[in-house]
Amino acid sequence: MDLHVRPFTLTLSEPFVISRSADEEAEVVQVAIVHRGVVGYGEAAPDPHYGESVPGAIEFCEQAAADLGDDPFAIEAILGRVAARGDKMAARCAIDSALYDLVGKLCGQPVWRILGLDRETIPPTSYTISIDTVEGTADRARRAAGYHALKIKVGGPDDLERVRVVRGEAPDALIRVDANEAWTVEFTRDICPELVALNVELIEQPLPAAATEAYEELHAMQLPIPIVLDESCHTLPDVAAAWGRGDGVNIKLTKSGGIREALRMIHAARALGLRIMLGCMNESSLGIAPAAQISPLVDIVDLDGHLLNANDAFQGLGFERGCVLPSDEPGLGVEPLDAWP
Amino acid sequence: MDLHVRPFTLTLSEPFVISRSADEEAEVVQVAIVHRGVVGYGEAAPDPHYGESVPGAIEFCEQAAADLGDDPFAIEAILGRVAARGDKMAARCAIDSALYDLVGKLCGQPVWRILGLDRETIPPTSYTISIDTVEGTADRARRAAGYHALKIKVGGPDDLERVRVVRGEAPDALIRVDANEAWTVEFTRDICPELVALNVELIEQPLPAAATEAYEELHAMQLPIPIVLDESCHTLPDVAAAWGRGDGVNIKLTKSGGIREALRMIHAARALGLRIMLGCMNESSLGIAPAAQISPLVDIVDLDGHLLNANDAFQGLGFERGCVLPSDEPGLGVEPLDAWP
Repeated sequence: MDLHVRPFTLTLSEPFVISRSADEEAEVVQVAIVHRGVVGYGEAAPDPHYGESVPGAIEFCEQAAADLGDDPFAIEAILGRVAARGDKMAARCAIDSALYDLVGKLCGQPVWRILGLDRETIPPTSYTISIDTVEGTADRARRAAGYHALKIKVGGPDDLERVRVVRGEAPDALIRVDANEAWTVEFTRDICPELVALNVELIEQPLPAAATEAYEELHAMQLPIPIVLDESCHTLPDVAAAWGRGDGVNIKLTKSGGIREALRMIHAARALGLRIMLGCMNESSLGIAPAAQISPLVDIVDLDGHLLNANDAFQGLGFERGCVLPSDEPGLGVEPLDAWP
Repeated sequence: MDLHVRPFTLTLSEPFVISRSADEEAEVVQVAIVHRGVVGYGEAAPDPHYGESVPGAIEFCEQAAADLGDDPFAIEAILGRVAARGDKMAARCAIDSALYDLVGKLCGQPVWRILGLDRETIPPTSYTISIDTVEGTADRARRAAGYHALKIKVGGPDDLERVRVVRGEAPDALIRVDANEAWTVEFTRDICPELVALNVELIEQPLPAAATEAYEELHAMQLPIPIVLDESCHTLPDVAAAWGRGDGVNIKLTKSGGIREALRMIHAARALGLRIMLGCMNESSLGIAPAAQISPLVDIVDLDGHLLNANDAFQGLGFERGCVLPSDEPGLGVEPLDAWP
């Protein structure tokens, strides 16, 4: 199999602001793996917060081309060789995704069907409301009227007031808040009753990932809103570690290294009674497609990465009744907008 | 899809004796699910110890025919409807297996390839040495010279002496012992040093499944031999419950209800750091085939059910270097010896 790799720059429709950063564009890495004329695609969204970069991901993919062999069905063996090169999880996700795309195309079936899944059970996606002024937040919420669920980025000034105005604009929406590690145990505990009154569904990553004892302390308080771990949970061992620290995990393919590890994590989380969220980064439709394929298995979908961009590199994802839907086409069900490779 | 069902009687090559029962034959239930001329096969091995029976499994399968619909790829949805009929796990395993067989055949690929697995990583199977006299045990061990691993059924008289004669006959084999709930905490603790001296790899289900606190007590002793739970572990929630009670779990498709739940259990057990054993009942090659498909994922293989019979209903499983191997044929890779259905 041959591997092609390219960077791709996404322009965000409006600034994406969270507690620790603000971005107006996002650069991703795309791979194309060619097997006897059939092309499998995958995308990496390297996160600098985890020490990853676009040049690092490109270099990793170029080196991993030597690990592919000539049988795309041998995913476990291929990914084992690729993993031995190191923890570039975004790049590994791109390769994993491209292999699943190939396997689906070679079988003539979308990946969700090969996995035996049912698109009817896909939950609605949340749509992200970036950190903004109170009035800017209200404006963002008004423009998100088509979404059944809203995820409000918090950890800035006026957190509670911003949740209040979003609830005012979207009385029937599911509302989640995501602090991206910016809160403390005390702040989280004290804001809880107000969030309950506003019918907030969950709090994502209130404390820093390193604050494992503080998470245990928070968990022991049995707060009336579930705590979902994102920055704290990357791969399978983190799922077991989440037990006793949170009520759920946010699984992202760019952290797990792709579909294969994400499936393992989903089943482990289910066994432990953890709620399962499936999230994303700023990604093109190619980055979202593999997550969409496995989204029937999860409780909470947060796959709006491709909906926040002014441009896209691939097409094929559907959107109905608030849900991001994988297509009926074989593999990941998305195709490039240009003639690549 | 249409469903056909039949009972099939296996004659065991020699009496199969464990701590609570002795059998000279085993009756299983086979199903054939037909989709547009393609046939998927599966087998149920109902265990009376779990309140299941051949007539009960046949009746369950006949009723579940109404749940199949016309899309064999919709495994999650179909198995959801079937599961709603109740906990006849062996019958549910037969239906699950037949659907995977169909999906593989429709994709033109063996199930192990669709799952991305690598046959090279399949561990050798153990071969069962039934409870017998000391001399009878030695004789059984001599006749099992072709196997790399032996599983000695214990919980009768002369347990230690029988392990000793097997070690004498098979100095290089992996040796496991399986008490099928017949021991006590004290007996298990006291026999451990002797089993260590005989290089026994693991102890399976020493105590009754209901003795959860006794298992915790045993676990706290940190014995030098891993304890693997079988009768204590049926489906996904039991994997989480095994944490703190044992060092591993014995997953059997006839307990889990098939491949799908077994995969969930394997990933959950891996997350929890539990050793993963894949076991079987007295079954034909059809019953063993779906387990063989997923056996690259486990640490300990115990799939000798079809090797203990004087007759068989299907063919296609391989046996090389002590390992039971799924074939290169599509689906489960086994075909009936008669023209059924």
